[in-house]
Amino acid sequence: MISSLKRFLIGRPLKSTELGEQKLNKKKALAILSSDALSSVAYGPEQILIVLAAVGAAAFWYSLPLAVGVLILLVALILSYRQIIFAYPHGGGAYMVSKNNLGVTPGLIAGGSLLVDYILTVAVSVSAGTDALTSAFPALHAHHVTIAILFVVLLTILNLRGVTESASILAYPVYLFVVALLILIGAGGYKILTGQVSPVLSAPIGTPVAGLSLFLLMKAFASGSSALTGVEAISNAIPNFKEPAPSNAAKTLMAMGGLLGILFSGIVLLGYFYGIAPSEEVTVVSQIAEDVFGRNYLYYFIQGTTALILILAANTGYSAFPLLAVNLAKDKFIPRIFTMRGDRLGYSNGIISLGFLSILLIIAFKGRTEQLIPLYAVGVFIPFTLSQTGMIVKWFRERPKGWLPKLLINATGALICFSVTLIFFLTKFSQIWPIIIFIPLMISMFRKIRRHYDAIAEELRVSAWEKALPVQGNIIIIPIAGITRVVENSLNYAQSLSPQQIIAVHVSFNKEDQTKLEEKWENWQTGVRLVTLYSLRRSIIQPLTKFIDSVERRTAEANYQITVLIPEFIPKKGWHHILHNQSSLLIRTALLHRRNVVVTTVPYHLKK
Amino acid sequence: MISSLKRFLIGRPLKSTELGEQKLNKKKALAILSSDALSSVAYGPEQILIVLAAVGAAAFWYSLPLAVGVLILLVALILSYRQIIFAYPHGGGAYMVSKNNLGVTPGLIAGGSLLVDYILTVAVSVSAGTDALTSAFPALHAHHVTIAILFVVLLTILNLRGVTESASILAYPVYLFVVALLILIGAGGYKILTGQVSPVLSAPIGTPVAGLSLFLLMKAFASGSSALTGVEAISNAIPNFKEPAPSNAAKTLMAMGGLLGILFSGIVLLGYFYGIAPSEEVTVVSQIAEDVFGRNYLYYFIQGTTALILILAANTGYSAFPLLAVNLAKDKFIPRIFTMRGDRLGYSNGIISLGFLSILLIIAFKGRTEQLIPLYAVGVFIPFTLSQTGMIVKWFRERPKGWLPKLLINATGALICFSVTLIFFLTKFSQIWPIIIFIPLMISMFRKIRRHYDAIAEELRVSAWEKALPVQGNIIIIPIAGITRVVENSLNYAQSLSPQQIIAVHVSFNKEDQTKLEEKWENWQTGVRLVTLYSLRRSIIQPLTKFIDSVERRTAEANYQITVLIPEFIPKKGWHHILHNQSSLLIRTALLHRRNVVVTTVPYHLKK
Repeated sequence: MISSLKRFLIGRPLKSTELGEQKLNKKKALAILSSDALSSVAYGPEQILIVLAAVGAAAFWYSLPLAVGVLILLVALILSYRQIIFAYPHGGGAYMVSKNNLGVTPGLIAGGSLLVDYILTVAVSVSAGTDALTSAFPALHAHHVTIAILFVVLLTILNLRGVTESASILAYPVYLFVVALLILIGAGGYKILTGQVSPVLSAPIGTPVAGLSLFLLMKAFASGSSALTGVEAISNAIPNFKEPAPSNAAKTLMAMGGLLGILFSGIVLLGYFYGIAPSEEVTVVSQIAEDVFGRNYLYYFIQGTTALILILAANTGYSAFPLLAVNLAKDKFIPRIFTMRGDRLGYSNGIISLGFLSILLIIAFKGRTEQLIPLYAVGVFIPFTLSQTGMIVKWFRERPKGWLPKLLINATGALICFSVTLIFFLTKFSQIWPIIIFIPLMISMFRKIRRHYDAIAEELRVSAWEKALPVQGNIIIIPIAGITRVVENSLNYAQSLSPQQIIAVHVSFNKEDQTKLEEKWENWQTGVRLVTLYSLRRSIIQPLTKFIDSVERRTAEANYQITVLIPEFIPKKGWHHILHNQSSLLIRTALLHRRNVVVTTVPYHLKK
Repeated sequence: MISSLKRFLIGRPLKSTELGEQKLNKKKALAILSSDALSSVAYGPEQILIVLAAVGAAAFWYSLPLAVGVLILLVALILSYRQIIFAYPHGGGAYMVSKNNLGVTPGLIAGGSLLVDYILTVAVSVSAGTDALTSAFPALHAHHVTIAILFVVLLTILNLRGVTESASILAYPVYLFVVALLILIGAGGYKILTGQVSPVLSAPIGTPVAGLSLFLLMKAFASGSSALTGVEAISNAIPNFKEPAPSNAAKTLMAMGGLLGILFSGIVLLGYFYGIAPSEEVTVVSQIAEDVFGRNYLYYFIQGTTALILILAANTGYSAFPLLAVNLAKDKFIPRIFTMRGDRLGYSNGIISLGFLSILLIIAFKGRTEQLIPLYAVGVFIPFTLSQTGMIVKWFRERPKGWLPKLLINATGALICFSVTLIFFLTKFSQIWPIIIFIPLMISMFRKIRRHYDAIAEELRVSAWEKALPVQGNIIIIPIAGITRVVENSLNYAQSLSPQQIIAVHVSFNKEDQTKLEEKWENWQTGVRLVTLYSLRRSIIQPLTKFIDSVERRTAEANYQITVLIPEFIPKKGWHHILHNQSSLLIRTALLHRRNVVVTTVPYHLKK
């Protein structure tokens, strides 16, 4: 039943050889890997205006030079990541780059903050998208947590079905969003150029503004650069690309950078020329759309695709998190289980963990995850800085042909990212302090797990000069509940192993039953010794364990192995299980945690 | 942790020999076995008046003859059950009496309806008590389901602690309730006799009433006799009494009957002479108490003890249900697990099941379980009728000295109970029809379980002339994940059993790893053959199962036994488990359900 539900939701298991068919072409990759970056255009410019609004509308013209700053940062990032893609064709990402060039700890800082970040991405994007939806249909507002969770579940299932399938479904909304914004920018620009927009709506560029501090400008810049989160996704996901993966990934990255630059500057420019002020109720994009088109179908088209892409931005997390987890798991910093491919060849354990953790976040914050945005942005810029710095070290160390310009590109990237990170800490410390606690905690956890795996590998290594002692003989203990065919079957099996000794043990709660059983056993003439233990407190495990202890003490020196052989009858139908007591299960579980006792289950399958 | 919480809630495990100390003396037995019967005084008289009110206040004098009818029924029941106690000193109850004298099916009808009835008792009483509480403190009203569930949990824990302990705690409220009502009846009667109550408050006895049908009178009688539910509890619980159990139980039964008769008739008489009419808001007992005392501390004392005893009435269910379940389980009609005594010597599985099921009922009906009362009453009168009929058959068959008067007593009881049952079906069919579906369903379930146990007993019986074939030889299959000390350990063990053949099996998802392992194995020189299986769809179980199948086919004729030996390393700390994949658990579970494969776990305990 469960298995056929799984088939229905996720699809039939794929062969490992079908992995190639699960790879992405450039068009699909752009859609599923850049939804996070592109969607931030919907709120990035607004973030700048909100900060500037603190000193008044006269300061809005500063959004233009600030946007230029963000664009420079974007260009630096895109160029830097393009270099990372070619340098780490098997999937770079901040974790690998930092670890290989700067050392394990910087690598873990980058990896840890990205891991948390992808969970935040999913929670924040889905909550934002759900808000957009419930604003349109207020009747749904009371259920916004449930709806957000449903979206996460849906995304999880889509991703479990496999990369290409989710790409096919998710590509349309992303392209529709791009088209919608391009139409808006085109139409809005045309109106401005043809003089249909009054030129006096905004303070002219260069107007001096009283009270505008450097601190505020820095804060506005940092807020605006949160639009660049998600840029690293492509460099993490190179293994998902069709061959030649690196060059396909690089081309996709450039396309994304181009689109992001155009959309971002377009929205900032329109905002300035249309004299838009940020408002609590209506987003900046919505105000621009209304001014350009009025409330016609084009307006709703833009609003609809915006809501959709906010939800889909979560998908970037789904693409990147499992791949990062694989890298961390291969290095034994997180459980090995994350390296296993599921039925549809995706890293299903990573996908499921991501879905589960982001649902927890949504529930914990009751769907109000906006307050996590700064945390999320700083969690991106730390690994950005680390990976760019790592690249500087790499170029300097390896010095391949033409390394200097490459180094300069990465150095610029590193410098800007570092500045943005610093600005975040200076201007938004009250919102991002948890990261100072989280990252060390995660790193210590990573190291603990690694130490455990290392210790075990050491302990389990087979060495030629230190062979384990061979077992000298066997003693078999058979706990029995009565004299039945199940027991007969187990005795037969035990005798076929020709052990040194077989002991049947019966734990009784009742002296009468005990005597009866002893007599019956005598008459049965199996040649096997029966030991009966009387349990005053009606526990089976305790007297049995004590008995095994005493046998163990007697045989320890001879290097005898004690085997507890549990006769178990397996009912024909599932519901029959509740009709029988689960002593065998209890005994098995209790004994497995003892030293030196082998536990054997001899099943007897019932016919009726 | 869990175990010490259990100790705290339930207490240390008792020795089986301490069972005698857990037995009840008469005073405690009266308290815990009659709370159900006595508490029904709080609503029984009211039920009569509610029915009569349908034709008007003039009909209220009919409550007096109807009460006489109920008293006759009470006397008949008490005398009949007294006879049952002596005839079935090991715990009679309707199930045993009906089964032994009328046959298995009537026994199961009685047992099944009582089993359901006790669950209803708990749900209905606790809900009623909670209502009384939330009426006093309206702030709690929104939480009444939670409060009711908490009461059930509390009662369950008390009963798990043991019979005597719960009796000590529960005795006070029961005796306080009896004292409170006796004071009320005494004071009220004194006022009537001294003429302080106007004699014209009620229509005089014998006033003709228009529109009063026989149907209505029957309905009023049936409603009034619901006050007699719980009378059978003592005859079920004889094994809980101190020796001499039967005579102690009989004396307790008589005391209960006397108290019940006095309280019931007292309330009916006061109701008539004070001219009380039933009302939605205030109960009859509360109206009488207010008329007699005014709203002083005595009034609140009566209200308080009434609320308390309504909750405690549930305890009758806790005393009777587990004992009935033991009887049904001994006859193999319900799972054997109900015959086992828990840590504190109570039948803890019955207690826990009862608590669980009644919580389910409370949740399903959102704490509004009043509508279940008629169902509950008819569920009592069916087994009443069956057990009295059973006694008639017994006397007639055995004819001991002085059997005729005994037979007449039981015949009277049977006749009245049968009439009451019929009246219930005639007058309240719309509320009690579910019993017609439930009882056949339960009986078919009982029989199905019995058939399963019988079939298994037959199949498992050891017969001297049909010995099982001895095992001719062993083939050991060891699934391995790599070459480690854990595997070395398992190989050592396997070799010590000197089987015909040992085969190591490795399932790989990757051709490269496979070749590497094969080479490493070659170099290891264990002398054991390694079979590697390549799994295209990354399942371990499937190829392993197929391989075992093929080995099985080759060895079936020789009566060889296949043993799958699973190397398993046991980490030192619990949290380490999540760091290792659970293949061994998966393999064990999957294989246990196959025919003819013995599953052995060879543990390797890690030191680090």
